[in-house]
Amino acid sequence: MLADWGSRDIEFRNTVADIRKRLLNLAGCDDTYQCVIMQGSGTFAIEAALGSFCGKGNKTLVVCNGAYGERAAKILERLGRPCITIDKGDSAAPSAEDVAYLLDAETSVTHVWFVHCETTSGIVNPVKEIAEEARKRGKIVMLDAMSSFGALPLDMTGEGIDVMVSSSNKCLEGVPGFSYVLCRTGLLDASRGQSHSVVLDLFEQWRGLESNGQFRFTPPTHALVAFHQALKEHEKQGGVAARHARYSRNARTLIDGMRKLGFTTLLGDENAGPIIQTFHSPRDPSFDFEAFYEKLRARGFAIYPGKLTKRPSFRIGTIGHVDVDVMEAAVDAIADVIGEMKVTDLSPAS
Amino acid sequence: MLADWGSRDIEFRNTVADIRKRLLNLAGCDDTYQCVIMQGSGTFAIEAALGSFCGKGNKTLVVCNGAYGERAAKILERLGRPCITIDKGDSAAPSAEDVAYLLDAETSVTHVWFVHCETTSGIVNPVKEIAEEARKRGKIVMLDAMSSFGALPLDMTGEGIDVMVSSSNKCLEGVPGFSYVLCRTGLLDASRGQSHSVVLDLFEQWRGLESNGQFRFTPPTHALVAFHQALKEHEKQGGVAARHARYSRNARTLIDGMRKLGFTTLLGDENAGPIIQTFHSPRDPSFDFEAFYEKLRARGFAIYPGKLTKRPSFRIGTIGHVDVDVMEAAVDAIADVIGEMKVTDLSPAS
Repeated sequence: MLADWGSRDIEFRNTVADIRKRLLNLAGCDDTYQCVIMQGSGTFAIEAALGSFCGKGNKTLVVCNGAYGERAAKILERLGRPCITIDKGDSAAPSAEDVAYLLDAETSVTHVWFVHCETTSGIVNPVKEIAEEARKRGKIVMLDAMSSFGALPLDMTGEGIDVMVSSSNKCLEGVPGFSYVLCRTGLLDASRGQSHSVVLDLFEQWRGLESNGQFRFTPPTHALVAFHQALKEHEKQGGVAARHARYSRNARTLIDGMRKLGFTTLLGDENAGPIIQTFHSPRDPSFDFEAFYEKLRARGFAIYPGKLTKRPSFRIGTIGHVDVDVMEAAVDAIADVIGEMKVTDLSPAS
Repeated sequence: MLADWGSRDIEFRNTVADIRKRLLNLAGCDDTYQCVIMQGSGTFAIEAALGSFCGKGNKTLVVCNGAYGERAAKILERLGRPCITIDKGDSAAPSAEDVAYLLDAETSVTHVWFVHCETTSGIVNPVKEIAEEARKRGKIVMLDAMSSFGALPLDMTGEGIDVMVSSSNKCLEGVPGFSYVLCRTGLLDASRGQSHSVVLDLFEQWRGLESNGQFRFTPPTHALVAFHQALKEHEKQGGVAARHARYSRNARTLIDGMRKLGFTTLLGDENAGPIIQTFHSPRDPSFDFEAFYEKLRARGFAIYPGKLTKRPSFRIGTIGHVDVDVMEAAVDAIADVIGEMKVTDLSPAS
């Protein structure tokens, strides 16, 4: 975070080149793929990918089961790019059969977009199965792996995923500041002139990076150098398998501890991934999310508000530079806070 | 850079609120203005402002004298927003009379966009005079103050500037990671639904910040907290006047030193601002920019390639956390490097 490189410096350009190479390796990409880094949050890369690859003459099926699928559909709508959706609600995973059925009914669909871990609920969707149905029908397969990449296994080549989007500050444990798109070279080549935007144009961003190793527009140099270090630590700690194991232990510890206190989870254990856990807000009228948040924050724990459309809830992340000890301490802090708030009825509010 | 806040934390939200307030004060904005922060480099805020304020039914006059004016025109073209340009080449400032003449000839123009300091050459354009001619004719006045804000005086209310765009990492001496738009509240209100983009939609970004002090999409928290510190240092060091004075001393020292070595400047002193200086590349065949750059870099000095369309040149910034001592050392290093490269004929290459 304190390395103050100029974006033209060869050391910085080498760092960027190594980041791009490492990301491709981590995602199981063969040499038919490219990595394009984009300034801004993860949603910037999502909009860049949708605007660059989903043309006005295409039709994209967005598989929704939460806010992030809906956001992709909203972006396509704003861009005037044809789109249809399957919406499974907040707590069900779309099945490969759902997708296959819809693709057979709507043969004009050219692209399929879906989310790996939908952090609205924390649910992990069946990537391999959905990708297979889409690929068998000749569709372009696009995955939002924002919150999962680096912790849930992903083999883009093997699973036939053409485009994947993720960011610096989730399971790879960098700081926020940029995002990236891994995608087939052929798709990039074909996307020339198709983006609705200059800054979000993936083809031009790629050409810039390829021509001289530099970004077209000022990159967040410090966030990139920090991410390079984060990637090296990820590798040293055992890569995807080790990170998946650590986050899974975190999730197990949190869920077990919370259930012991009386909280209930939205998802059954078979659907809940190790990324983020959704708990129903207690029915007790003494429970107030803002107060709960602030009291936990004062004890050193930052949690997330719920995103469910139908029922009050809150979420607790189980990723980041934390382990089982931190999760146990979080459960203790929550026990302490609900005691202080005099929340006794922990059954779910409706 | 090491403060690791969550973007929902009240301390972080208060920091963002204070940054927005300080920027408005610094630009002489009264309470009819708002500050909207945008993730990404300066060009992200430029595209956001053009896409949000310059509608399909408007016509924007872009005053060009270098790459940054041209870039704004290119963005409008990509967005399908009507646009005409005046192009003064790389080394002449557009005059208020040029703008007045064109506005009288093209009465359908609704918006005027121009650059404060065009860093293609380093030239400072006459903001007050151009703004006045545009304002007298009822046009919306939009200023790219990317490289000048914080060092060149600006009074948006007094000078009738409706929209100004700048970034974190120029004269305010923060790190790269975000940019911002200062603009009239009425323009934001009227821009609802007008942006070509979801992530670059200034109206929605503003509504997010106003509703709960949070960004819609993950902000670069570390870059924002660092910028807050940079703003406090700017104030403590004497604000715009002191920064202008320091950069002017830097520019004077550099230009005098380089002329003494035999280099020639693109601009006369009456047009050269204190931000960045353009020197003609030497005619001597031993001069090679890449080698020159690397040798200076090895001595601790990072310079910029030229951006002129017609003649080979290079540029040296005179802003940032540097003073006269650093500028003197840079001139000494350049003397050393051209000696090492055996460059003797410093007259301009054509």
